[in-house]
Amino acid sequence: MATEKRIDPWASVDVENYKALMQDFGIEPFSKFREKFKANRYVRRDIIFGHRDFDRIHNSITKKKPWAMMTGLMPSGKFHFGHKMLADIIIWLQQLGGQIYVCSADIEAWLMRDITLEEGYRTAVDEYLTNYVALGLDLKKDFTFWFQSNYTTEYYRLRDMISKRVTFNELKAIYGELSPGKITSVLTQAADILHPQLPSHNGKKPVVVPVGVDQDPHLRLTRDIASRLDAVRENSTRDFPCIPPSSTYHKFMRGLQGGKMSSSRENSYIALTESSETARKKVMNAKTGGRATAEEQKKLGGQPEACTVYDFFVYHLIDDNKELMNIYKDCTSGNRRCGDCKKFCADLIEKFLVGHQKKYKKAKTEVEKFIAKV
Amino acid sequence: MATEKRIDPWASVDVENYKALMQDFGIEPFSKFREKFKANRYVRRDIIFGHRDFDRIHNSITKKKPWAMMTGLMPSGKFHFGHKMLADIIIWLQQLGGQIYVCSADIEAWLMRDITLEEGYRTAVDEYLTNYVALGLDLKKDFTFWFQSNYTTEYYRLRDMISKRVTFNELKAIYGELSPGKITSVLTQAADILHPQLPSHNGKKPVVVPVGVDQDPHLRLTRDIASRLDAVRENSTRDFPCIPPSSTYHKFMRGLQGGKMSSSRENSYIALTESSETARKKVMNAKTGGRATAEEQKKLGGQPEACTVYDFFVYHLIDDNKELMNIYKDCTSGNRRCGDCKKFCADLIEKFLVGHQKKYKKAKTEVEKFIAKV
Repeated sequence: MATEKRIDPWASVDVENYKALMQDFGIEPFSKFREKFKANRYVRRDIIFGHRDFDRIHNSITKKKPWAMMTGLMPSGKFHFGHKMLADIIIWLQQLGGQIYVCSADIEAWLMRDITLEEGYRTAVDEYLTNYVALGLDLKKDFTFWFQSNYTTEYYRLRDMISKRVTFNELKAIYGELSPGKITSVLTQAADILHPQLPSHNGKKPVVVPVGVDQDPHLRLTRDIASRLDAVRENSTRDFPCIPPSSTYHKFMRGLQGGKMSSSRENSYIALTESSETARKKVMNAKTGGRATAEEQKKLGGQPEACTVYDFFVYHLIDDNKELMNIYKDCTSGNRRCGDCKKFCADLIEKFLVGHQKKYKKAKTEVEKFIAKV
Repeated sequence: MATEKRIDPWASVDVENYKALMQDFGIEPFSKFREKFKANRYVRRDIIFGHRDFDRIHNSITKKKPWAMMTGLMPSGKFHFGHKMLADIIIWLQQLGGQIYVCSADIEAWLMRDITLEEGYRTAVDEYLTNYVALGLDLKKDFTFWFQSNYTTEYYRLRDMISKRVTFNELKAIYGELSPGKITSVLTQAADILHPQLPSHNGKKPVVVPVGVDQDPHLRLTRDIASRLDAVRENSTRDFPCIPPSSTYHKFMRGLQGGKMSSSRENSYIALTESSETARKKVMNAKTGGRATAEEQKKLGGQPEACTVYDFFVYHLIDDNKELMNIYKDCTSGNRRCGDCKKFCADLIEKFLVGHQKKYKKAKTEVEKFIAKV
């Protein structure tokens, strides 16, 4: 047990070696679905690199059977390009025909981060939901949004049922030191993931949760819980018929200073509601893969693998693989200078932000109408 | 710490020495209210022997200000004479002007005793609620009844808020080994007690919880939690303005075989829906304070203090103190024979059951109508 690797979903983890992690935790490579879903940039570029039981989702898509996608948002800080990736994945899955379930983890935010429900509400609506819609989420399709603090009795009941099917030591092995608040958070998260399969949501169905590997312990626990809820006991009934959730695993783009992109470090991210000027400043100050001198750069070429500006191209700004390859070659051959490249990036970001912020404004009214009914 | 007395509310505790317990846990004697409330048999006979902060309730009664009484029922087994005492206390407090809050602890029953929500529902309605009404509870007055599994979002939210204001070690000190299910039970119980003070229930008010001393640890914990929820923090708001709950403490009548009266031992109790014949048999087999031989009985007299039949007189069957005293004297002087006394008791029980069961039948329709709206 002592040598077992533990991923702590509560701490900030820099995930270095995705492959080793996949082997350790039994995550399957997503490459088998690459050809089928190559229209998606994140699939095409192996940013979505792993999965558990995505075959179930694939099957449902092929056979046009019901399936859902579930994800939670932490209502804290600004919505930035790191969050945009997940939003794009949500929208992609919606376009593939999935029922979309998105939860504002406002109880977790209050319990673990002292964020009041009122603050959490505004952040979920203004930062997350409105940006989702501006990016292309269709509220009129099968879309369910809820706050952990304000949902159905059936959901809270499921959470209580779950508390019977999980042991204290099991939680401790995953989450370390436990408080009643942490236990509440964990049980709520399991209910978030499983409740799309409740009878009132038309029952048992494949549900996929797109996550970073740091969230995998939650997933494994919830999969175990699902099996227990689904188990037939003595009296030949079960607590709740359900299928263990599927998951996809994505890489994270780095922050502009290197390291993690995080809402709590302002220079690490660019928010989607940020002014072009601020965005430009941040890009111009970003950590690149450039060499110490112009001479070295010419001789050795740049290192796009180490460049946070290049991350922006890969994740968001350059959709065409050939165009991206040209930049890569230009950089590694030493022809591309970081200053010019940053300007190029800032221009693309500006173009994106201007267009996005128009859509954001339009989305605002629609979202306020929608949320009033939640 | 090792020498500290611990009362475990999850185990069956035979409480021998009420006075010592009161001193150990700081429970005040109820005697100061005896004169005022002597019309109540349980007060008159010191069966309600202790309290915490009942002055607040007394004050509210005197000044005709709002106050509430809260209690939970465990939806398991038959409703018997042990339960009748608490029902009588509820009805008494309703008649004194209290808003009545009664909860079916069906989540706790499921988590701790494997009772399904469906079983719990039927027991709560058929055994508890209908007997309450037959005994005199007025559903048309300010009466709130809920199932832990099926209540308001605000109630579940309060429970989650509570989970932030309590530590793991604190729970462990009271409840011993903890499971996620046990923690859910405990947090739910605290929300049960505190939610009558929520804004939607017209806010802060004195609430009294009538309990046996074995339930005191819950009460002390909930009082501490209330203080924390009510505490003003940095930003000069509080989680939830509320007053620590008051409590009264009552003795327990013994089971007919001696020891605890318990739904799980059929010969220990008489159910209020039981046939007179079965009830008579149980009484005739009851453990009394009689001596080994008729001769000894004549010489030494009986021991009503040790007699479970006498408990029935004290708690339920003989309301008049003089009449009770006559029985006591008759017994201790050796004139009263256990056989005759049991017949006398069985006759009184029969008379009660016949009358009660008529009222029960009538109450059934009213309760079904009421519960359909819960």
